Amino acid sequence: MLEYYVSLSAIAVFAITGALAASQRDVSFFALLVLGVTTAIGGGTLRDTILNQPVFWVADLAYVWVAITMVGITFVVLRFLGRTHRLFMRTGRLLLYLDGFGVALFSIQGMKMVLTWGFDPIVALMMGVISAIGGGLLRDILSGRPNLLMTRELYASLLLLGGICYLSMLRWLPVFPFPDYLAMALVFLMRAAAVRWHLNMPGWLMITGRA
Amino acid sequence: MLEYYVSLSAIAVFAITGALAASQRDVSFFALLVLGVTTAIGGGTLRDTILNQPVFWVADLAYVWVAITMVGITFVVLRFLGRTHRLFMRTGRLLLYLDGFGVALFSIQGMKMVLTWGFDPIVALMMGVISAIGGGLLRDILSGRPNLLMTRELYASLLLLGGICYLSMLRWLPVFPFPDYLAMALVFLMRAAAVRWHLNMPGWLMITGRA
Amino acid sequence: MLEYYVSLSAIAVFAITGALAASQRDVSFFALLVLGVTTAIGGGTLRDTILNQPVFWVADLAYVWVAITMVGITFVVLRFLGRTHRLFMRTGRLLLYLDGFGVALFSIQGMKMVLTWGFDPIVALMMGVISAIGGGLLRDILSGRPNLLMTRELYASLLLLGGICYLSMLRWLPVFPFPDYLAMALVFLMRAAAVRWHLNMPGWLMITGRA
Repeated sequence: MLEYYVSLSAIAVFAITGALAASQRDVSFFALLVLGVTTAIGGGTLRDTILNQPVFWVADLAYVWVAITMVGITFVVLRFLGRTHRLFMRTGRLLLYLDGFGVALFSIQGMKMVLTWGFDPIVALMMGVISAIGGGLLRDILSGRPNLLMTRELYASLLLLGGICYLSMLRWLPVFPFPDYLAMALVFLMRAAAVRWHLNMPGWLMITGRA
Repeated sequence: MLEYYVSLSAIAVFAITGALAASQRDVSFFALLVLGVTTAIGGGTLRDTILNQPVFWVADLAYVWVAITMVGITFVVLRFLGRTHRLFMRTGRLLLYLDGFGVALFSIQGMKMVLTWGFDPIVALMMGVISAIGGGLLRDILSGRPNLLMTRELYASLLLLGGICYLSMLRWLPVFPFPDYLAMALVFLMRAAAVRWHLNMPGWLMITGRA
Repeated sequence: MLEYYVSLSAIAVFAITGALAASQRDVSFFALLVLGVTTAIGGGTLRDTILNQPVFWVADLAYVWVAITMVGITFVVLRFLGRTHRLFMRTGRLLLYLDGFGVALFSIQGMKMVLTWGFDPIVALMMGVISAIGGGLLRDILSGRPNLLMTRELYASLLLLGGICYLSMLRWLPVFPFPDYLAMALVFLMRAAAVRWHLNMPGWLMITGRA
């Protein structure tokens, strides 16, 4: 039950950060709604569609309502305060941490679901990453922004790392209680460290394009 | 039966407008075919895939054939007359109205189908919008053009408005005969007014980006 | 059995060419992995999702492992030799031929599968093209590069031509043994000729954009 409310909060966080990211250009309320809701539910939709499962938000509309409500609130706040209000300056960093919490939760929870459905760990790993970053990718594609794949920031790669740790715990360290919460905490802490100290992908993991 | 032919005409309109939109850049016949057909059947494909239904054009190939034929005719006409021929100058506005008819029909018909399948009204509303604008979004993403989400034009938001009116009629005014035709007419008239008087999204529904 | 190993090699080729294409910009290992694997398995995933079939790589993980391994090897080689090493200069053209082999195989094999599932030839034709170019389209959309639809190069249109020949052989020339291998050879030879003599789409199949 706790898990359910936690995942609703993650949807809420994603809807807010998605709407804020979209609002960096001139957008109408309608576009904000589409982009915010897509950010929140897009990743899980891709996962469920690829695995031929009923899409999670069609089965439980609470996710959609939470996403719509949060985009609505974000719109009203943006509209009344303006994008340059100090509220956003102050909470910008907070939102990065909240988003880190969101992706940590989505990726590990997505993996857990896929494992429960009986799929192979490697499928779970891929779907965990897609659950967490798919919504943001769709938003960036729809709004014509460069997406997170093309940055040096430590973000999506941490999900892969955390997912591998999660699978390793499940397989080789079954004595750990709550391996999913441990893995979520790990992903979140890695992402928080990356935000806090502006960590980038190390050079030896990068390839330099057209020299 | 009438409804079937009307929806085939909407597919035809979308294939033509899709091909014309794509032809604003240098394109081969093949690209025109892919982009025109995607515009025509892409939105319904997204709807059916998300809801785990058989994709409509796989179940009834008439839709595909109509789309392919119309793109073919459009190609021949473009090839022989050239893009700057006065035929296109004259019919440009007519096509905007026809496109308005197409989205009105796709959105309300899409909603009706989704309601018939037993899904919740909010799912129907979202799927109605996706049915109507999904194909155009895919075309713009594939051809690297800015898409309709990022404009101020009154277009997709009218579908949301019309869809809400449709649901309200179904719920609170069941005495209306043919609520679907009424809703289609409403969406079409709103869109036609937007085309006729160059109506934009009102300022209070807009957020200004990077100030 | 031979067919199975041949299709694994095609996945391998696509993973390598996908990773090399992605490496034309600064990318991290993670992005290379996502883009290379997407190139390799994206087209088939689209086909299976649209037709409501179990996704091929979820059903048989060998495809995923081959793709991941090949991207890994490509990364190590790129990292140690650098993108401008003469190895890539020399093998660049070879890779174009290998890629031609890959699309020939994917498109005809995709069509054969779709026909086996009992779908109409026109659905098979569309899905054959999507199987072959879908992965590359997704990669280009994700990495923000112009995609193959907007070029004059003879590439995807050859798949359509080859697919029509394949269907014609099945229907009107059933005396041919192995029509699928013949069609694959035909597509490959057409593509190889296009690479060898730098053939472009003939002018009468092109439409000139904004004059």
